[in-house]
Amino acid sequence: PMEVRRFLVWLRQQGKVRNALLRECLGEVLGTFIFMMFGCAALAQVKTSRGSKGQYLSANMAFSVGHFSHLCCLLPHSGAHMNPAVSLSCCVLGRLAWSKLLPYCLAQVIGAFLAAGLVFLMYHDAIMSYSGGVLTVYGPNETASIFATYPVEFLSLGSSFLDQVVGTGMVLLCFLPLDDQQNSPAPPDLVPPLAATVLLGVSMSMSYNCGGGINPARDFGPRLFTFMAGWGSDVFTCYNYWFWVPIAAPMLGAVIGSYIYLIFIQWHLPDPDTDTCANALNILPKENLSPCPPCSTNLT
Amino acid sequence: PMEVRRFLVWLRQQGKVRNALLRECLGEVLGTFIFMMFGCAALAQVKTSRGSKGQYLSANMAFSVGHFSHLCCLLPHSGAHMNPAVSLSCCVLGRLAWSKLLPYCLAQVIGAFLAAGLVFLMYHDAIMSYSGGVLTVYGPNETASIFATYPVEFLSLGSSFLDQVVGTGMVLLCFLPLDDQQNSPAPPDLVPPLAATVLLGVSMSMSYNCGGGINPARDFGPRLFTFMAGWGSDVFTCYNYWFWVPIAAPMLGAVIGSYIYLIFIQWHLPDPDTDTCANALNILPKENLSPCPPCSTNLT
Amino acid sequence: PMEVRRFLVWLRQQGKVRNALLRECLGEVLGTFIFMMFGCAALAQVKTSRGSKGQYLSANMAFSVGHFSHLCCLLPHSGAHMNPAVSLSCCVLGRLAWSKLLPYCLAQVIGAFLAAGLVFLMYHDAIMSYSGGVLTVYGPNETASIFATYPVEFLSLGSSFLDQVVGTGMVLLCFLPLDDQQNSPAPPDLVPPLAATVLLGVSMSMSYNCGGGINPARDFGPRLFTFMAGWGSDVFTCYNYWFWVPIAAPMLGAVIGSYIYLIFIQWHLPDPDTDTCANALNILPKENLSPCPPCSTNLT
Amino acid sequence: PMEVRRFLVWLRQQGKVRNALLRECLGEVLGTFIFMMFGCAALAQVKTSRGSKGQYLSANMAFSVGHFSHLCCLLPHSGAHMNPAVSLSCCVLGRLAWSKLLPYCLAQVIGAFLAAGLVFLMYHDAIMSYSGGVLTVYGPNETASIFATYPVEFLSLGSSFLDQVVGTGMVLLCFLPLDDQQNSPAPPDLVPPLAATVLLGVSMSMSYNCGGGINPARDFGPRLFTFMAGWGSDVFTCYNYWFWVPIAAPMLGAVIGSYIYLIFIQWHLPDPDTDTCANALNILPKENLSPCPPCSTNLT
Repeated sequence: PMEVRRFLVWLRQQGKVRNALLRECLGEVLGTFIFMMFGCAALAQVKTSRGSKGQYLSANMAFSVGHFSHLCCLLPHSGAHMNPAVSLSCCVLGRLAWSKLLPYCLAQVIGAFLAAGLVFLMYHDAIMSYSGGVLTVYGPNETASIFATYPVEFLSLGSSFLDQVVGTGMVLLCFLPLDDQQNSPAPPDLVPPLAATVLLGVSMSMSYNCGGGINPARDFGPRLFTFMAGWGSDVFTCYNYWFWVPIAAPMLGAVIGSYIYLIFIQWHLPDPDTDTCANALNILPKENLSPCPPCSTNLT
Repeated sequence: PMEVRRFLVWLRQQGKVRNALLRECLGEVLGTFIFMMFGCAALAQVKTSRGSKGQYLSANMAFSVGHFSHLCCLLPHSGAHMNPAVSLSCCVLGRLAWSKLLPYCLAQVIGAFLAAGLVFLMYHDAIMSYSGGVLTVYGPNETASIFATYPVEFLSLGSSFLDQVVGTGMVLLCFLPLDDQQNSPAPPDLVPPLAATVLLGVSMSMSYNCGGGINPARDFGPRLFTFMAGWGSDVFTCYNYWFWVPIAAPMLGAVIGSYIYLIFIQWHLPDPDTDTCANALNILPKENLSPCPPCSTNLT
Repeated sequence: PMEVRRFLVWLRQQGKVRNALLRECLGEVLGTFIFMMFGCAALAQVKTSRGSKGQYLSANMAFSVGHFSHLCCLLPHSGAHMNPAVSLSCCVLGRLAWSKLLPYCLAQVIGAFLAAGLVFLMYHDAIMSYSGGVLTVYGPNETASIFATYPVEFLSLGSSFLDQVVGTGMVLLCFLPLDDQQNSPAPPDLVPPLAATVLLGVSMSMSYNCGGGINPARDFGPRLFTFMAGWGSDVFTCYNYWFWVPIAAPMLGAVIGSYIYLIFIQWHLPDPDTDTCANALNILPKENLSPCPPCSTNLT
Repeated sequence: PMEVRRFLVWLRQQGKVRNALLRECLGEVLGTFIFMMFGCAALAQVKTSRGSKGQYLSANMAFSVGHFSHLCCLLPHSGAHMNPAVSLSCCVLGRLAWSKLLPYCLAQVIGAFLAAGLVFLMYHDAIMSYSGGVLTVYGPNETASIFATYPVEFLSLGSSFLDQVVGTGMVLLCFLPLDDQQNSPAPPDLVPPLAATVLLGVSMSMSYNCGGGINPARDFGPRLFTFMAGWGSDVFTCYNYWFWVPIAAPMLGAVIGSYIYLIFIQWHLPDPDTDTCANALNILPKENLSPCPPCSTNLT
């Protein structure tokens, strides 16, 4: 099969993505896809097995595992954001060009959408058996929460907004110091497990109110899929068009969380010199904003 | 927005904290805040969801995650004590100036108080729904134990005091060797997970009697908050003014735990020379007591 | 006992395996044996104790621990595949000689078979007590699922095939970047825990439909044992001869998962030069295909 | 308090243990004490809270945490055996002088005995409340299994013996490669978590039959304590004097597990030279058997 090999080499040369942004977006698609595959499939397993093959804690852990598993690989490509709120925060801090924000977000939504689709295929029989064949957003046999997040019934709009702001803020507050070269960055070996542990912590402690979305792509992509796959427009209209909350609130929360870190810790670090100081504030323009720093230096 | 940037740089220059102690205290406020955010929010999630969104183990894990997540960042600032008992132990061992003890403790209480407040805001609807709107310390719908710790009913005062002494002693006994340069200190990558694991171990094994406070700030800050937020004076007077136990006992336990390590292990290490020996005992005054050694060398 | 020592040295010299392939196969036998000992014994403990001494999550964790525990030791011997699907994927990618595929698979099946036998011996009394002495594949007291995997009843054949393809694909998709020297390989210290975490993730999220086999040796070896040990031909004939699915589907899934990684990420990595490019595609023949690269560079 | 300091220095000089064996034994006492404190206290918490403050899994994890937490500190002192079966195995392999075996075992039993005593003190009120004040070995309110291990009722003597042999064998089989310098030893950062993970795996998968003792000191020390503390001679006479099984079987299992590793893997490693070969077999006497190699090279 020497011809097959030559054909594959030729095919690869033709299909090779030479555009850096497109390459980064491919990375974000894949990373968010894997992240959501583990997470959504675990939610499906726990729900459709009625808890006999897992519990809420194992679903929390699966999201964390999904985050952990591709971090090493994707960090030097795109920074492994897997979350529009993290990408926005990087833009605000000057670590990502604003022009890349939209493509990144789109790639993340696509990855989450694809994962939702594959999980639905995998668990199609189980979901149909669990729900009696009726795909609904409300009631004891609802299955929409396998894919997107929904608030508990007693929750006011303001509380749910606050919940998402705080949850995302905590994530950024804990992610930022991991690679702050001015402060004491975490050892490279610790960056992936630390980031995964923070996600686990947030989903164990701040997911009762609204399901712990804290990620617009993680929420909107699967919601769009359920809208198209048979759950209908309820996924958007339910709880008085609540779906905008897990999109908007995390964006705000990420920026707030980032500034809390800057204000409490980073701005007060002893300056080596003024230049570095301006750099630490991350508000002066950088000439050569590199999208691909070495591994573990571009986490957030 | 070049003007905005300039304004921010100017603002930062004005607001910059140049006092080392204040900077360290800011770190302790933030560290204890994050630690308690994860922990208290997890307790709130487990309790108000009546176990459907978590279990006792996940609350144990959340405290551990909170401890883990900012350790790398705060170690070189303040030592990341997040616990007055740890700070006291550092003073006794000569690793922290006595004059810093009170500011550290105050900062830790403030951080825990703020976390309790934010958790109350986040879970306000859930707490009201769970408790039927009545914030109490006793009974099946009590919600005070989300924030501060309370003993089980059959417990005598002596037993609860012993429980807190032993729990805190175990923590210090396990923390001290982590950075004992004379002995075999843990590899820097292992210090944060080891410290977090020890906390997890203590909360899995020594928290039934009194809720596993082992930290005066973790207990007093949230208790003060609940006193002000509607639970009333019961939080202090209940169980015959029991609230002093998780403040006083950990202080004693930390010192005892530290000395057990010294007596069993450290005093018997082969001496390089007499000078180091006196240094190892940590009882001779140090001229230049530096508050900011490099990362992972100042854990306890 | 100087004579005993001399005799042992002489015995070792005689019994020493000097054939590299046989040595590698011994490693695969031992690795798969240990992997399955932890996994099957945990399934036995959870089932026969009716959940009082463990839960589904602890069985998931035990498989992951079994994978973790011998990875460091076996990586430089055979690559620690412990899974025919991983071995096949290595052949397709040019990392393992095709002539070694069959011996590797055989060794893995033998290891899994031996582990099933020892677990049956260990838990013989418990299995008899649980099942009332009747070893069956169906019904509430079935014990066959301790050893091999079986689908849930509502599952169609296509769904179960897809389930195994996706599960194995996810594993390979996450294993491949770990040692991709062209991309950013994981730090050596992270390879074993990352691989174990991926397995944990898959068994927490993709094991409801078919029990999460994703490994022909893990499934066929114990199934053969149960066939011989008293469960009878039902283990092969049940669910319309379903046993071929967890053998064939993982093989296909592994190849698909590998190519998804190549297509999305690896083919688009910037080339150092054409030579390396062809190498990265892994489709040109290698002269000196070494079976024993240094630790952690030959995981998948 | 300069006088106090001088007095302490003087006291330390007087009390300093200059005998290496005694120093190592102190380390074993402390290590086993900490190990058992976490483990027994977790068993007490889970049982006396009737599962509301923990589950079987959290007790498994607590034993593992206890093993993890002092490994770094004690490895260079005594090798951190914490288990007579491990010490025996080290003697058989020539890594520990036979003359040290008895003192090590004694130290380990003392450490476990002390831990049982302190756990009894801490949980005295809870144990009395749970058991109604009657300390028994049998029945639904038995509390003896908090301290020592007991078999399930349907278990034959042979099965329980096999269970302990296999469990301990698995531990040694997984511990030995961790520091095998001829093979590929684990990175130093991974030795403590790997060892703890192996213990977790064994207690999740092989503890239903007999409670997962696999450690004569862990079992005999607390059993002796319960005999003296009020449970009476039942702790020794129950199940037809079963107490000798978790003492004798782990000793045998450790040796078998060690040899399985030698026979399957180590004897077939390519020899650098004959000298090293004899050394690898560990059967030739070593002149300078050092008790204190550098950290992480003397685990088993």
